[in-house]
Amino acid sequence: MEKAEAERKVEESVVEDDQVVNPWQVSAKDGGKIDYDKLIDKFGCQRLQPSLVDRVQRLTSRPPHVFLRRGVFFAHRDFEEILNAYERGEKFYLYTGRGPSSEALHLGHLVPFMFTKYLQDAFKVPLVIQLTDDEKCMWKNLSVEESQRLARENAKDIIACGFDVSKTFIFSDFDYIGGAFYKNMVKVAKCVTYNKVVGIFGFTGEDHIGKVSFPPVQAVPSFPSSFPHLFSGKDDLRCLIPCAIDQDPYFRMTRDVAPRLGYHKPALIESSFFPALQGETGKMSASDPNSAIYVTDSAKDIKNKINKYAFSGGQDSIEKHRLYGANLEVDIPTKYLNFFLDDDAELEHITKEYGAGRMLTGEVKQRLIQVLTEMVERHRRARAAVTDEMVDAFMAVRPLPNMFD
Amino acid sequence: MEKAEAERKVEESVVEDDQVVNPWQVSAKDGGKIDYDKLIDKFGCQRLQPSLVDRVQRLTSRPPHVFLRRGVFFAHRDFEEILNAYERGEKFYLYTGRGPSSEALHLGHLVPFMFTKYLQDAFKVPLVIQLTDDEKCMWKNLSVEESQRLARENAKDIIACGFDVSKTFIFSDFDYIGGAFYKNMVKVAKCVTYNKVVGIFGFTGEDHIGKVSFPPVQAVPSFPSSFPHLFSGKDDLRCLIPCAIDQDPYFRMTRDVAPRLGYHKPALIESSFFPALQGETGKMSASDPNSAIYVTDSAKDIKNKINKYAFSGGQDSIEKHRLYGANLEVDIPTKYLNFFLDDDAELEHITKEYGAGRMLTGEVKQRLIQVLTEMVERHRRARAAVTDEMVDAFMAVRPLPNMFD
Repeated sequence: MEKAEAERKVEESVVEDDQVVNPWQVSAKDGGKIDYDKLIDKFGCQRLQPSLVDRVQRLTSRPPHVFLRRGVFFAHRDFEEILNAYERGEKFYLYTGRGPSSEALHLGHLVPFMFTKYLQDAFKVPLVIQLTDDEKCMWKNLSVEESQRLARENAKDIIACGFDVSKTFIFSDFDYIGGAFYKNMVKVAKCVTYNKVVGIFGFTGEDHIGKVSFPPVQAVPSFPSSFPHLFSGKDDLRCLIPCAIDQDPYFRMTRDVAPRLGYHKPALIESSFFPALQGETGKMSASDPNSAIYVTDSAKDIKNKINKYAFSGGQDSIEKHRLYGANLEVDIPTKYLNFFLDDDAELEHITKEYGAGRMLTGEVKQRLIQVLTEMVERHRRARAAVTDEMVDAFMAVRPLPNMFD
Repeated sequence: MEKAEAERKVEESVVEDDQVVNPWQVSAKDGGKIDYDKLIDKFGCQRLQPSLVDRVQRLTSRPPHVFLRRGVFFAHRDFEEILNAYERGEKFYLYTGRGPSSEALHLGHLVPFMFTKYLQDAFKVPLVIQLTDDEKCMWKNLSVEESQRLARENAKDIIACGFDVSKTFIFSDFDYIGGAFYKNMVKVAKCVTYNKVVGIFGFTGEDHIGKVSFPPVQAVPSFPSSFPHLFSGKDDLRCLIPCAIDQDPYFRMTRDVAPRLGYHKPALIESSFFPALQGETGKMSASDPNSAIYVTDSAKDIKNKINKYAFSGGQDSIEKHRLYGANLEVDIPTKYLNFFLDDDAELEHITKEYGAGRMLTGEVKQRLIQVLTEMVERHRRARAAVTDEMVDAFMAVRPLPNMFD
């Protein structure tokens, strides 16, 4: 009932709302900021309350990730159920993914993977990572070969985030679809009408049928039986999906179908969008390289991009800035620091001083350049150390005997 | 241009015509007979001219199959191209299939397989047989397991038709879909809009997306690259599809897409429908066991069904029959003999004597009972000899080194 209503609301929102958030489009009303409260209300998910963050800390005996502490992951579905089950001694598995449409990842792409790595370490659970090369082949009109090449390149960046090979299975749809996975695709497809996917995803009659066929592909990694080499005989295992909230429509559909197939509904923990350098009006655009910092950017690129493009909330003149302070609501450098500066005390100091006008934009940007350069440099070193053999190991269809240790 | 026009006509026919022929529905106008001339015109395929039958005889140095001689296979697309290529010394492969929705096959189900066996023997070419267990799981609401069980049971009946294991690959979609086959599915799906499949197949918004997703599954066995274990490096190999004409919509779609993917258009050779015992108003109905002879029927069943249900064109009384003769236009026993009595001279004798009233319905039915009992008995013996190991051999994904010998 609750869900049906939520879905009706979403369907209306496609028509009536100026704010559009779906897997292929994120745009706020009148070019403003995404209204996340409204999104939570429409999608019918829950806000992630501080009490749940405290509980994560207690259950994992480690400080919660900066993305949890600072509300980057801000919404969820049934995350409490996952914690309840975990507290009872039941394990779960993590599922996240990426559509490999570009050679190099930008910082926004890293957010779910950095967070998933933390969840894997903290809860000591297995993880499946879906590379939707089939989706990108269909949506971006890439060749099969190019999609698969990008999937493998992106896998290197993902592996560089530090995942545990003894607990992680990375797969390309083109490689892995078949067998139990395809059977689940058919089972899901049987439960979803065309009108339903039009309501959820906004497809039109002129869209090709590959698009209509795809939602079950992203749905079924939520079910343990799609991975018999990992979870054979564990059909009851719960699944937690860390992702950006634009992926919610896929999993709303999946959660609707799951009980009819005898599976648990997957739980979700959902992030806001990482803002573009130019300001917080949506996701970054792959078509504008100056809208984002890429993991392939040099120290010089990073310095230039931050200094030139990072939208500042500082005042026009030093005098005015000293007088009024920075407008942190729109300031990109402090928003980026909020994601990537781990030191709570330092972040608090910067936002306080900057907001009061005692610190200047240039100083904040300087610190951000330092943080990002170190982070990107660290990623580059880690990625350079990823060999083809390591990629093969992560992507091999093989049992993971120690995945719950 | 020609094709686009043909398709437009089909699309109109869904709305305007009383005659409906698609993979899920065959019904004539006002309960009459299927108008095959009209169908050829609408679908945009060609009538199979006697000159082509003669050419088959010349090229294969054997008498053409009874289904060719008597026009059971009556329509085609590019069959002449296949013969041209064959004459130049190029080989091709055959592709046919079955939706495994029932335990036992009826005689109508055997028609394409009997004919395909003849083609395989005559042209000495490899054959792939698709068992669309995924389709039946979705359309008939069978479980995955039940669909797969039926696929294997049906495979035994198909093997019993005498296919050459060194030239034949039988596959279940649930088992085989993946890899190169799935890549081709995605490539096809990219080329076909939702509006297009609605025009071809008549789907509605309340149909589930499994139905919308399925046409590429039946399309891609037309492309040799879907079978790398058989045809690796032979992307240029032509494909000939023997099937009943209700399957034409799938391959019209496939032929439209093929050149855009760099493949040959598959050629088709298409049969009329095997009539129900009650009369020639469409295909037989699986829901009425008395409408058809099954390969599991006993001699007694066959005798009863023919005597009781086979619609006779004979007159009401012997006197009238002797006077007017039988109406062969509507007579089922002679139509069945036309399919299964191999002896041309005897068939001519029967139709002549019966049509002139010198032979009675009872005598014709007696001969038909004999022919069908022998045929069904022969099939039963052949099927009983099909072991699980043989099924495994036909369904194994393995190279067939002698498939072109």
